[in-house]
Amino acid sequence: MKKYSELTTEELKKIKSELENKLKDLKALNLNLDMSRGKPCKEQLDLSMDLMSVLDKHSDLICKDGTDCRNYGQLGGIEEARELLATFMENKIENILIYGNSSLNVMYTMIMQAWVFGIMGSTPWCKLPKVKFLCPVPGYDRHFAICEEFGIKMINIPLSETGPDMDMVEKLVSEDESIKGIWCVPKYSNPDGYTYSDDTIRRFARLKPKATDFRIFWDNAYTVHHLYDEPEKRDHILEILGECEKVGNPDIVYKFASTSKICFPGSGIASMAASDNNIKDIKKHLKIQTIGYDKVNELRHVHYFKNLLGIKSHMMEHAKILRPKFELVLNTFDRELSDVDMVRWTRPHGGYFISFYAMHGTAKDIVARCKEVGVKLTDAGASYPYHKDPDDSNIRIAPTYPNIKDLEVALDVFTTCVKLSTINKMIID
Amino acid sequence: MKKYSELTTEELKKIKSELENKLKDLKALNLNLDMSRGKPCKEQLDLSMDLMSVLDKHSDLICKDGTDCRNYGQLGGIEEARELLATFMENKIENILIYGNSSLNVMYTMIMQAWVFGIMGSTPWCKLPKVKFLCPVPGYDRHFAICEEFGIKMINIPLSETGPDMDMVEKLVSEDESIKGIWCVPKYSNPDGYTYSDDTIRRFARLKPKATDFRIFWDNAYTVHHLYDEPEKRDHILEILGECEKVGNPDIVYKFASTSKICFPGSGIASMAASDNNIKDIKKHLKIQTIGYDKVNELRHVHYFKNLLGIKSHMMEHAKILRPKFELVLNTFDRELSDVDMVRWTRPHGGYFISFYAMHGTAKDIVARCKEVGVKLTDAGASYPYHKDPDDSNIRIAPTYPNIKDLEVALDVFTTCVKLSTINKMIID
Repeated sequence: MKKYSELTTEELKKIKSELENKLKDLKALNLNLDMSRGKPCKEQLDLSMDLMSVLDKHSDLICKDGTDCRNYGQLGGIEEARELLATFMENKIENILIYGNSSLNVMYTMIMQAWVFGIMGSTPWCKLPKVKFLCPVPGYDRHFAICEEFGIKMINIPLSETGPDMDMVEKLVSEDESIKGIWCVPKYSNPDGYTYSDDTIRRFARLKPKATDFRIFWDNAYTVHHLYDEPEKRDHILEILGECEKVGNPDIVYKFASTSKICFPGSGIASMAASDNNIKDIKKHLKIQTIGYDKVNELRHVHYFKNLLGIKSHMMEHAKILRPKFELVLNTFDRELSDVDMVRWTRPHGGYFISFYAMHGTAKDIVARCKEVGVKLTDAGASYPYHKDPDDSNIRIAPTYPNIKDLEVALDVFTTCVKLSTINKMIID
Repeated sequence: MKKYSELTTEELKKIKSELENKLKDLKALNLNLDMSRGKPCKEQLDLSMDLMSVLDKHSDLICKDGTDCRNYGQLGGIEEARELLATFMENKIENILIYGNSSLNVMYTMIMQAWVFGIMGSTPWCKLPKVKFLCPVPGYDRHFAICEEFGIKMINIPLSETGPDMDMVEKLVSEDESIKGIWCVPKYSNPDGYTYSDDTIRRFARLKPKATDFRIFWDNAYTVHHLYDEPEKRDHILEILGECEKVGNPDIVYKFASTSKICFPGSGIASMAASDNNIKDIKKHLKIQTIGYDKVNELRHVHYFKNLLGIKSHMMEHAKILRPKFELVLNTFDRELSDVDMVRWTRPHGGYFISFYAMHGTAKDIVARCKEVGVKLTDAGASYPYHKDPDDSNIRIAPTYPNIKDLEVALDVFTTCVKLSTINKMIID
């Protein structure tokens, strides 16, 4: 079969007309499908229903240190929960803080604290003429939204299969004191599904930023979210805080995690790991901000998972549900788009997304066409600071929420629109 | 019996020596009692254990509008929870936002948003040379701690049985644009247990502050926390947001409430009520701050309480436990301190505290003496901005947490120390 690049304009026009007819038929179906957010599907949520009964009215809600989970207190979380999250995050229990239900909210809080109070005695960021963050792209839209809200200038950093462009990161942070942070999703990155290499992580640990209040915002959102039972060796990542400690740089990183996509999103527990100095600095502010988080929910999660093995075996059940969906996307792309040689896509082994790279200048058009036919995708450009994909190429595919049948139809719409937008662009160019 | 003021120095010295002997005996008991925080006691927590079973693994966690409580989304809370809190707060459902487990955290968030982003387009408070808050005193230490954290200058406003000194409030807010807020606990105030009069609340609604971004922080923490089954008429308060709307001043107030001292502190749901304009302004920022709060816990509370009547009858069970403790304090004070005519105390009909006013210049001494004998009280001065009680007189009595037996002993220590400190002060003066 000929590649699109090899076709004549006449041949392209013929295909175009076929595609337009097909799209008409698809439109007549009055679809209403949503592939826009990285939400778990119903079957995934059903996996965790026992969480609702693991504590009940007969349960002892007293912790081993005597803390009554029902009452006020225990800022930073109960010991049992910190223990569980410590093994999960591969950190020491004294470096763990447990928060409420949202790790995004914890990241926001860290930016807010730095903005208003500074970090470990530094000038509050709100008092500085300019604050900048490095943003590996494409990345997580909600990270970028936080920066935009605070007026933090975002600088794009290219992301590849081994992680962000570290030459660029090292150069920028060593030169510019107004660069205060970098957003990282080190494992199964959102949306590419890339996992940082050991070399990348070692270079992160050794960063020598000009700003003493520079922090790596290490959002390890998909740490146990493998699609295959035995995560391949290349999807293991080095534990960054330990690496930082090794090279005498322990304060440079804030690590974030949560159980949101492990059991119930929105009703999980979020946590953070950081150096002793950071924890001390953070708690100083946190104790003014709240009396404590939901300890009953912490205990609920401890009783439900018991230990890291409990979490891991639970995640294998998720993988069983998600694997066919990811494979359906990849197989459909392989089958339908192998001749469209100006597009490509990633093949993640975990996480919640597949990244699709359309022909430059067509992503917005594809998303708009899909929407017209009743298939909602993440907005083109959403994975870039200020919603600006310089190439208008990246589309985030979120296959987890729809069922297989809906996903099949949505992918039919998507691949049809990809081909049509590509041909249109080719003919115009 | 002669009053202390009528005794000669010799008579005082004789009593003093008896008191010192008594204190020695009490010290020998090696007590370790805590009357420092407004925490519910175990029996109160036990009242709500059914909350743990009202939802279980067989429950339908889908809301009436189709929202799956287990998944992401529904910023501002599920409709069922907003409905319950709307009746509870006496506001319209569209003016209610549901948050996480801590109303203190919601108040902090409101200050933070104003600090970083301003209110409805006003200059962010962090850009202003000076920001001030009015603080009715004595008041809630954690309110004042938030101001101190942000560097907001606090101005004391005398609080009486009808509420804050409104002449002073009206004058100050109309003259000084840097005054941006006032902290109010309008019902069973912390620590006096005073309830604002209708006239006070109407004057609040009619305030004409110079600052357009001035807000009344209306922390209605004890709205249903009556000590007697039939709350007396004078402990009913006017609904402030409605009063503000009536006089065309709807944006001036932020109302806060939570279920923390109704079921489990730390595992409840917090909420806020505000005008349409405020809600719109707040949500604009909130949607960056989090994806949503714990909806399963919201649904749990809805199923548990069902409606306002459910909350009210539940609170009558709390009253049965708390009433004897409050009465024990008051009876002990009446019995032991009626001759100490330079001290007084409040007689609340609800809430969590009794305010004790020692002879000027003795509060710190009393608290220190109690501590030495193993009875921990709230620090003297804690109920004042910057921990500075100008009279060194107020001591917050928190009788809810200890059991009756411990409370009896603690009160014996307390009244002994009060008498001793008073006599010492009298002799020195």
